[in-house]
Amino acid sequence: MKQLVLEIEAILDQVLPPAQTVPAVLHESMRYSTLGGGKRLRALLAMGACAAVGGDINNTSGLVAAIEMVQAYSLIHDDLPCMDDDDLRRGKPSNHVVYGEAVALLAGDALLTEAFAELASMPEKYGVAYETTVQVIGELARGAGSLGMVGGQVMDISSQDQELAEDTLRYIHEHKTGALFKAALRGGALLGGANPEELNQITRYAENFGLAFQITDDILDETGQTEQLGKAVKTDQLHGKQTYPRLYGLEKSGEMAERCVMECHDALNGFSQKAGLLRELASFIIQRDH
Amino acid sequence: MKQLVLEIEAILDQVLPPAQTVPAVLHESMRYSTLGGGKRLRALLAMGACAAVGGDINNTSGLVAAIEMVQAYSLIHDDLPCMDDDDLRRGKPSNHVVYGEAVALLAGDALLTEAFAELASMPEKYGVAYETTVQVIGELARGAGSLGMVGGQVMDISSQDQELAEDTLRYIHEHKTGALFKAALRGGALLGGANPEELNQITRYAENFGLAFQITDDILDETGQTEQLGKAVKTDQLHGKQTYPRLYGLEKSGEMAERCVMECHDALNGFSQKAGLLRELASFIIQRDH
Repeated sequence: MKQLVLEIEAILDQVLPPAQTVPAVLHESMRYSTLGGGKRLRALLAMGACAAVGGDINNTSGLVAAIEMVQAYSLIHDDLPCMDDDDLRRGKPSNHVVYGEAVALLAGDALLTEAFAELASMPEKYGVAYETTVQVIGELARGAGSLGMVGGQVMDISSQDQELAEDTLRYIHEHKTGALFKAALRGGALLGGANPEELNQITRYAENFGLAFQITDDILDETGQTEQLGKAVKTDQLHGKQTYPRLYGLEKSGEMAERCVMECHDALNGFSQKAGLLRELASFIIQRDH
Repeated sequence: MKQLVLEIEAILDQVLPPAQTVPAVLHESMRYSTLGGGKRLRALLAMGACAAVGGDINNTSGLVAAIEMVQAYSLIHDDLPCMDDDDLRRGKPSNHVVYGEAVALLAGDALLTEAFAELASMPEKYGVAYETTVQVIGELARGAGSLGMVGGQVMDISSQDQELAEDTLRYIHEHKTGALFKAALRGGALLGGANPEELNQITRYAENFGLAFQITDDILDETGQTEQLGKAVKTDQLHGKQTYPRLYGLEKSGEMAERCVMECHDALNGFSQKAGLLRELASFIIQRDH
């Protein structure tokens, strides 16, 4: 897994325009928030899904770059003063603290846009079929759009300081984080040549993985340390956000996350040992301390 | 042209999720800034380029929606307090004035993302070939990204209150507005089945159209009325922005715009009367009063 994270870093370093490219401040800012940090979970999931269905993970390079750029954009915009107003991200000052709000906003916009430019270059750069390319672009766009990630973010900010029903909390998590995990996994599976049944099981894995991730994230925000997480803790409470531990308590939340991980393994039952990375990631997700 | 503008409005109305779609405030906000206004220049250019090379303009519906969504997103983000801080747009309160900064930011993000979802649906919805679809996505992503529109915006804000050399001013305009015109025109031509020579001439038209548009925009900011323009005037001066009239004077700027329009007509010399819309648009661009 460590080796793959290095490969992902190398792909991003190569895909992003060099820092001195005009306008330099924009490309510096884009690189600042995309390179040198993060667990690269979404990229690893894309690679894992491709491998699980018997594909060559080199086929996922375009998606790996795109999904991490989308993740970086969403974090930059999330941290802006008009959103969560967070000054710290991955143990470093947030993008807008370093480059100012306007450049941070535009760096996020550019990363989102370049993600699609990178996907559109997959046929030329990696020999991906045009039809598959269009399918993967559709997956990412729907996963990141108003019925996916952005929809989840809006629901999140509009329901702060309110008592949330379980289904609203679930909507937020399924969309805010789950939709992008799903796009990474389904996109990776499509690039690996998945058949419809494999795609179904990967989707089931994705839904449970997303929920397990989010519950664990909520638990860590409650119990973790700033030094471990590389970002401020207890911010959910501060922002009046509803979380699993607040709704169910820490113990029951932990059990729910474990049940999701079991479902992930279950979804992979019909897969060979090539699904090893996905199995590893499912177990890792609730054991992590950051 | 008026009939086409109505058709463009109908396409956008149909493509954007209904206002009550969850989260409703997001979809309302997206519709607020995309529907019911604007000259729809980029969409008309896409249609015009498709028709000029002998294509069926119904093939451009996906691009028409996508390019106007990208335009709407860029205006929402441009108007934000951390950018130009404009309260008025197309004669109405800006998006963030109505929906708040956070929702406006996210509505812009969602519109940019949905633009690519819409392009990726062209094979299914309009029978566009997968290869052409990927080419058009590449055109829009490059035109709107860090080496296109966003690059121009960053250069614009980082050079405010500075004496600009002619080439910096040209860089800003070519990127900030020109790149999206070019993507619309080249995308439309590709959807119409342009051959390489036709694509070259459309590109030449695009570059001159973009410059003529921008010079005229600068002149209108200097000489126009808020009521006509639907936005505040003399904002360039207020923000310390360099403009053509400030660099060359009003008269010489007008002459430069006229020369660009002549170049546009020149680029269309080899085209039949099917290039009528593009010819009309080139002449319109410097005669408009808003």
